[in-house]
Amino acid sequence: MAKRVVTFGEILLRLAPEGYRRFLQADSFGAVYGGGEANTALSLAQFGTDAAFVTKLPEHDIGQAAVNFLRSYGVDTSMIVRGGDRMGIYFLERGAAQRPSRVIYDRAGSAFALARREEFDWDRIFAGADWFHITGITPAVSDGMAEISLEAVKAAKRLGLTVSCDINYRAKLWDKAKAGRVLSGIMQYVDICIAGRGQAGDLFGIESHPASEDDYRAYEPVARELTERFGCRAAAVTLRTTVSSSDNLWAAMIYDGEKFCYSREYNIHIVDRVGGGDSFAAGLIYAQLTGMDTQQTVDFAAAAACLKLSVEGDANICSVQEVKELAESGSAQVQR
Amino acid sequence: MAKRVVTFGEILLRLAPEGYRRFLQADSFGAVYGGGEANTALSLAQFGTDAAFVTKLPEHDIGQAAVNFLRSYGVDTSMIVRGGDRMGIYFLERGAAQRPSRVIYDRAGSAFALARREEFDWDRIFAGADWFHITGITPAVSDGMAEISLEAVKAAKRLGLTVSCDINYRAKLWDKAKAGRVLSGIMQYVDICIAGRGQAGDLFGIESHPASEDDYRAYEPVARELTERFGCRAAAVTLRTTVSSSDNLWAAMIYDGEKFCYSREYNIHIVDRVGGGDSFAAGLIYAQLTGMDTQQTVDFAAAAACLKLSVEGDANICSVQEVKELAESGSAQVQR
Amino acid sequence: MAKRVVTFGEILLRLAPEGYRRFLQADSFGAVYGGGEANTALSLAQFGTDAAFVTKLPEHDIGQAAVNFLRSYGVDTSMIVRGGDRMGIYFLERGAAQRPSRVIYDRAGSAFALARREEFDWDRIFAGADWFHITGITPAVSDGMAEISLEAVKAAKRLGLTVSCDINYRAKLWDKAKAGRVLSGIMQYVDICIAGRGQAGDLFGIESHPASEDDYRAYEPVARELTERFGCRAAAVTLRTTVSSSDNLWAAMIYDGEKFCYSREYNIHIVDRVGGGDSFAAGLIYAQLTGMDTQQTVDFAAAAACLKLSVEGDANICSVQEVKELAESGSAQVQR
Amino acid sequence: MAKRVVTFGEILLRLAPEGYRRFLQADSFGAVYGGGEANTALSLAQFGTDAAFVTKLPEHDIGQAAVNFLRSYGVDTSMIVRGGDRMGIYFLERGAAQRPSRVIYDRAGSAFALARREEFDWDRIFAGADWFHITGITPAVSDGMAEISLEAVKAAKRLGLTVSCDINYRAKLWDKAKAGRVLSGIMQYVDICIAGRGQAGDLFGIESHPASEDDYRAYEPVARELTERFGCRAAAVTLRTTVSSSDNLWAAMIYDGEKFCYSREYNIHIVDRVGGGDSFAAGLIYAQLTGMDTQQTVDFAAAAACLKLSVEGDANICSVQEVKELAESGSAQVQR
Amino acid sequence: MAKRVVTFGEILLRLAPEGYRRFLQADSFGAVYGGGEANTALSLAQFGTDAAFVTKLPEHDIGQAAVNFLRSYGVDTSMIVRGGDRMGIYFLERGAAQRPSRVIYDRAGSAFALARREEFDWDRIFAGADWFHITGITPAVSDGMAEISLEAVKAAKRLGLTVSCDINYRAKLWDKAKAGRVLSGIMQYVDICIAGRGQAGDLFGIESHPASEDDYRAYEPVARELTERFGCRAAAVTLRTTVSSSDNLWAAMIYDGEKFCYSREYNIHIVDRVGGGDSFAAGLIYAQLTGMDTQQTVDFAAAAACLKLSVEGDANICSVQEVKELAESGSAQVQR
Amino acid sequence: MAKRVVTFGEILLRLAPEGYRRFLQADSFGAVYGGGEANTALSLAQFGTDAAFVTKLPEHDIGQAAVNFLRSYGVDTSMIVRGGDRMGIYFLERGAAQRPSRVIYDRAGSAFALARREEFDWDRIFAGADWFHITGITPAVSDGMAEISLEAVKAAKRLGLTVSCDINYRAKLWDKAKAGRVLSGIMQYVDICIAGRGQAGDLFGIESHPASEDDYRAYEPVARELTERFGCRAAAVTLRTTVSSSDNLWAAMIYDGEKFCYSREYNIHIVDRVGGGDSFAAGLIYAQLTGMDTQQTVDFAAAAACLKLSVEGDANICSVQEVKELAESGSAQVQR
Repeated sequence: MAKRVVTFGEILLRLAPEGYRRFLQADSFGAVYGGGEANTALSLAQFGTDAAFVTKLPEHDIGQAAVNFLRSYGVDTSMIVRGGDRMGIYFLERGAAQRPSRVIYDRAGSAFALARREEFDWDRIFAGADWFHITGITPAVSDGMAEISLEAVKAAKRLGLTVSCDINYRAKLWDKAKAGRVLSGIMQYVDICIAGRGQAGDLFGIESHPASEDDYRAYEPVARELTERFGCRAAAVTLRTTVSSSDNLWAAMIYDGEKFCYSREYNIHIVDRVGGGDSFAAGLIYAQLTGMDTQQTVDFAAAAACLKLSVEGDANICSVQEVKELAESGSAQVQR
Repeated sequence: MAKRVVTFGEILLRLAPEGYRRFLQADSFGAVYGGGEANTALSLAQFGTDAAFVTKLPEHDIGQAAVNFLRSYGVDTSMIVRGGDRMGIYFLERGAAQRPSRVIYDRAGSAFALARREEFDWDRIFAGADWFHITGITPAVSDGMAEISLEAVKAAKRLGLTVSCDINYRAKLWDKAKAGRVLSGIMQYVDICIAGRGQAGDLFGIESHPASEDDYRAYEPVARELTERFGCRAAAVTLRTTVSSSDNLWAAMIYDGEKFCYSREYNIHIVDRVGGGDSFAAGLIYAQLTGMDTQQTVDFAAAAACLKLSVEGDANICSVQEVKELAESGSAQVQR
Repeated sequence: MAKRVVTFGEILLRLAPEGYRRFLQADSFGAVYGGGEANTALSLAQFGTDAAFVTKLPEHDIGQAAVNFLRSYGVDTSMIVRGGDRMGIYFLERGAAQRPSRVIYDRAGSAFALARREEFDWDRIFAGADWFHITGITPAVSDGMAEISLEAVKAAKRLGLTVSCDINYRAKLWDKAKAGRVLSGIMQYVDICIAGRGQAGDLFGIESHPASEDDYRAYEPVARELTERFGCRAAAVTLRTTVSSSDNLWAAMIYDGEKFCYSREYNIHIVDRVGGGDSFAAGLIYAQLTGMDTQQTVDFAAAAACLKLSVEGDANICSVQEVKELAESGSAQVQR
Repeated sequence: MAKRVVTFGEILLRLAPEGYRRFLQADSFGAVYGGGEANTALSLAQFGTDAAFVTKLPEHDIGQAAVNFLRSYGVDTSMIVRGGDRMGIYFLERGAAQRPSRVIYDRAGSAFALARREEFDWDRIFAGADWFHITGITPAVSDGMAEISLEAVKAAKRLGLTVSCDINYRAKLWDKAKAGRVLSGIMQYVDICIAGRGQAGDLFGIESHPASEDDYRAYEPVARELTERFGCRAAAVTLRTTVSSSDNLWAAMIYDGEKFCYSREYNIHIVDRVGGGDSFAAGLIYAQLTGMDTQQTVDFAAAAACLKLSVEGDANICSVQEVKELAESGSAQVQR
Repeated sequence: MAKRVVTFGEILLRLAPEGYRRFLQADSFGAVYGGGEANTALSLAQFGTDAAFVTKLPEHDIGQAAVNFLRSYGVDTSMIVRGGDRMGIYFLERGAAQRPSRVIYDRAGSAFALARREEFDWDRIFAGADWFHITGITPAVSDGMAEISLEAVKAAKRLGLTVSCDINYRAKLWDKAKAGRVLSGIMQYVDICIAGRGQAGDLFGIESHPASEDDYRAYEPVARELTERFGCRAAAVTLRTTVSSSDNLWAAMIYDGEKFCYSREYNIHIVDRVGGGDSFAAGLIYAQLTGMDTQQTVDFAAAAACLKLSVEGDANICSVQEVKELAESGSAQVQR
Repeated sequence: MAKRVVTFGEILLRLAPEGYRRFLQADSFGAVYGGGEANTALSLAQFGTDAAFVTKLPEHDIGQAAVNFLRSYGVDTSMIVRGGDRMGIYFLERGAAQRPSRVIYDRAGSAFALARREEFDWDRIFAGADWFHITGITPAVSDGMAEISLEAVKAAKRLGLTVSCDINYRAKLWDKAKAGRVLSGIMQYVDICIAGRGQAGDLFGIESHPASEDDYRAYEPVARELTERFGCRAAAVTLRTTVSSSDNLWAAMIYDGEKFCYSREYNIHIVDRVGGGDSFAAGLIYAQLTGMDTQQTVDFAAAAACLKLSVEGDANICSVQEVKELAESGSAQVQR
């Protein structure tokens, strides 16, 4: 029987100029819908997992379009609360070569940011679920959401779900001090945490001292400290290197309390750089739910992240078989 | 020497699905920038008038894109205040046949709505200007804007500009009682007012009793009463009939205190139904600034409105010559 | 509690050149998915009805894209059988003015046409359902489908569902003699039948003798004979007139065994002429399931058909409220 | 055996903003290739006629693209001279409603305009041909082309081809006096001439005095005088009325020396207004080559012109069967 | 005098989502027409060779569009048989980075696969021809096509044409045993054969034992054995390496019975990975027909293949001069 | 107070097929406006500099579109002369991998090439200006422009402006002998000159003897000789290497009469290869006007050129901050 995963967060309307046009050159915007936890749910649904995404969206047709987008890909949207005035938007300008991608957020005052605690009945939401996933973006959205996020992880823990959290610190949303304080609270209930390199230092004061950009081993003490301080079962560190906007390196490490397992390093010619980490989380959750060991988990999750960067949009539209083929072989041969 | 017109209001990012796609079918949005007073300024700039548009826009690149859009068409943007967090957005679904066009506004909390009085130095803004134009949308945006709008018309009047106001009541922004109260204050300073049919009744209790949809003469007492009650030099009534989303009738009447002048009635196969009234205002202002009499003015302004409905976007990208050719002949012959 | 409707048929990949390009001018094809019963299910889902669509589709990603398309709009796709090699395709060239639309079918050998009886467990499919809808296209697809269609209506009848059938004779799929024979069998189990004008004469020898194209009353004896011969509770006749490819007239009549109720006649400027009848069927089913009387039903169903012709694609992406507004007023005013 | 038609003229790169965008709104241009005689050849090739188009085009890839465009549709391009520096361009802004279509020509100095007499070996070009068609645009292009055009019709006549000429006066290319003088020379060799209403008066002083725009009979004396003055076997007058840029009326009359035959009048919702006359010419030539009588010829040719206005681009991509179906019935029913 | 080449095979409608969209993200498909032998004919026509492509296509407009596509590029389509019901289709999803390209074939039951022997009169087809080219895809399409292919090469040989065959084994169409048996029969009549690395081992049991992916010399015994076993004058081996979907290496070797000639190795950033081998074949044929020696041939053919991968679509739209410039210098400098 | 820069030259309509389509595959062209000096002015306006572009453009709407394009980006267009018949056009085919970009010019007979000396009143044009920039393309356009260019630099010098010239030799416009003669005259008035490697040798006989493509020091004697021969204050040499159409190396060196300063070398994955040199010039001018030293200048200018290659179109739509971030760090990290 398919395992059930619930994720909780905001989904935004993403508006991106066509191709490599800059904002100042745009006379149309391609529209998809994305957000950290939504992307993870969507990727899990492609893996065949029963994945529900919980959020709040306005009742108007742009809100409905977000729902339709999610259910098109098989995400369970039946727990989404409807109401409020607006949905968050983000404008994305795709970078290339030495020109970085740029994001303009327009998410203040969204239905989600202003949602109230009583709108989310966690006992009902978690009924039948095995896993709960959240990121550090959700509590950053508003003070109310910081509270609701804490309630959510507490409820999930109480109801016996595995809880994962991708720290995902966003400096445009809150400062480090506040983020560290709020996330420390949430982390008490987290079984598996995911952090980009440097984030643990920024938020929890867990410093790393890499000799160079490819000194991945410098993050081993960080992963160990995360598990020890917060009592997590495992900690994953994603290891990306921005060679340029067109080319990235991607690897990951997971510490399971005993050993440090590393994925292969992928050298990736980028199609769409958004959502690699969210796809990593989906890969990690799928791997753990289907009984993969730590090495298999990091291999599968890193391959999922790598594939995402070749897919347009925020989320990873790839099957388990595709991820496994890459994790196992790395080939990109056309089948015919 | 070219006359100078100043208009003041909000400019929104308009996002419209391609062609006749519904919101639920959109995976991209065509982007233009528009708003009542901005559209009027843009049309005036096409007529060769020195037209300045005053607003407040964020400093980010979407705000800059709005500035670039305006100055592309020759609008003077040097008086635009920059700052604040977001610009207002409206989503437009183009109707067809019996299916109406639909608009979803996302303009709350915009840089313009939250702008402060001291950001607009009307003496500096009106230096060298001959005419000031505003619509009833601007004071509807926020209480602050209601105050600022009143200050603006007062200053314009004091500095000897001609003041025009298109009543343009929007039920989604405020209720009739409040609109009537605020606009009555503004109308004290208005030289020429423009109203759609029914609007004067809604807001100022000036009722009309048309026998049928084409009983245009029913609005003559309305126009007279507007001029008398508010001391306007002239009042224009726009007379549109929505046959369907694909076909509209458009005509107009102006009362100049002495006589009622009617334009021809245009039967228009619609390309883009937004902005007809704003183009009418531009036509009226241009006509008055260049010395046309009342009949010429209503002919020119109605022809301008008619042409707008054949142009994509919110504003009328047509020259004086094009408008005159239509006003005089009505032909649509290709030149070669 | 929402009523549940099941529809059964083939869904095709529709490939249409952009805009008014002819096939010979196409270098890309817009892709949507459609088919008579799928369109009806999709429209019902927009009305908030619990609508399931049953078909067979290949497991490959084009088949999956059809599933995703349906579930995006809220159709229950959980009963869809997966397997077989190909899905049917139709190429659509949009007509304009005096140039007719053209269709090239490429549906032979589809997974659906070759599906086997044992793949559809009607008792399971109809569990909890209130209504079953089918069209005359489905039994036309293959001899196997003629048998399966008969089984389906028998099972539906046995299980107490209301059964509706849109006769929808397609000369490109079978000849009149065979169609008349097969559909006569199916009609024994039908509660409400829908026919275009002339179709009953073509298939069942029920002639009409209209004096002119707008002699709608000539079809009253046809409707009565359909109800009497096949024991239907009601018979609907759709009354379209092709003024040109750009303009159609649309009206309908329903006979409920007692009286003949006529809708208004709509003069429609066409956006997409496919699927008017399927939307009529959805309107009729919704109206009947929600307790509308015969006059209300024909008004609602005809308004639904009318709106469809203003919507891109095969199916009617319109809400109950939109249909009601048209049925009641006919206005196409933008709301703002 | 298929009859062979040769046409001679310039083919231009046509650059048109997408949809109804104005030139000032364009950031891309759709590209097709067209010109009076090229359009006629292309339409004839769709009718199955062996049609050769003669012109001069540069050797570069834009010139080659024009050749590829023509041969895609089956036009014989083997007689096209290659060389020179540039090809003519025209920018086309599609009108709508009361806004006329606009054309900006950029054709001066084209390879064709500067072509030399010795580059066209008419004996070789006309080998095996039955019909030669030219328009009044070709001699207007340059003084050289006026001479070459005259040589061409003389050679065609000498070699026993039927010669047709569409007068097609273009005020942007030359004045009436010069046009009248040059075309009078050419007309000496023409068997069948085609004129828009008013053109004969403009150029040859053959006045008509229509009582109103639909007084088609006013052109009967014109047609008779054309045949008598220039010894033509027949004269056709095309009768278009621009209701608006979106709707045109189209009819035609042919005088064959004995009787005046009129086509039906078509009320056409326009897709692309360019090339109606060129398609009329193709229809006329096809009809005459396949033995239709005068009434059949005007019916076929007018139906061809009508269909063209529903087709994107300059030329009529329609088959003989499609034209006949319209000429005979006027229906626009989708076949399925 | 231009040499004449005939190629024979199927041409498919290729439908590819825009850019890097996955099938599940497609709402339109770019359409081109391609197939192994068609691509080779098209490339040869760009080289100025008289190239005829022989196939069978339905009479409908999608079939006609394929004909128009080919003749646009100058391919002689006069030998194409018209009839049958459908044309084969393939859906292409463009890969990127570590995500492979994917193909969904929908070609069963095509007019070509069901064509009958008597529809191809090889004596007439080969009249005036110098070279015949076929690939291993054609006999794989159906048993009938296996027979017809054998007839074709026999007739070509009998009539004195040079015969080339690109083995091009496709595992989705047939198994190795059958392919080996059928192709062995055809190979008896082949003068020059082309094989990808590994293919000879798969089909004919001619094993290679490369030490690594760039051990090109490991294929020398294969090439020699091919010439010896089947009596070919020469054997070419194409040497591609899929670094990723975005970057490929391409080189080739030809053995002419005496020596092994290698091309340069190209490191190619991919635009469209389809058709490299078909362009190699066109380059080889052109080189041989114009008297290049073995080294020049492999240089020209490999440069042609390399350029193809930078061109959208299935076929190589490049001139002889462009290929020569690359073969000689490798530069990619813009000319101005 | 912002410094004012004037540039003078031709601006062309650039027409480029979408994506990587070849000319022969184009059915639409993306349109932007560009030219050496216009690109430099546009980039300077993005830097906040008061930048005026002087040229001559026709009065028609394509000419107006060029004006609107420039003023959209804040360029002062008030000095542009309007008149003449046509504007120059260039067709651009984007190269990829080993396939070079190609350009077809259609600029002969443009309004600019035929402009007359008296149309440019240099005293008025240079009023209030600090810097004048021109390239070697402008005097190449016509003999008249050679004269006018010389007048312009003389006037600029006389009026105390700093004069910069990018030699930019274009072999398609004139031969080396003439170019050398004309440019030598102009160079007498130039303060800072910019040359690509090899150009000084081509035109002025100042030879370099690089040992290899990355022997940048070989151009030091060239830079010194340029300053000495023509009395320039500084000479810049741009150092690009075309690895392929997809990847370029870019670096630059400036000699200021004392020392040779080198920028970093950028390895750039190309989005649009046009305009790198023009952006370099803008960077150099901005840097000099804001008081950067020679090392800072070459760093800023080279970073500007590098960023341009990641931007669609001819000109560098990047801010000072973006250029500085790259010049200082080289990172391409998304900000959020």
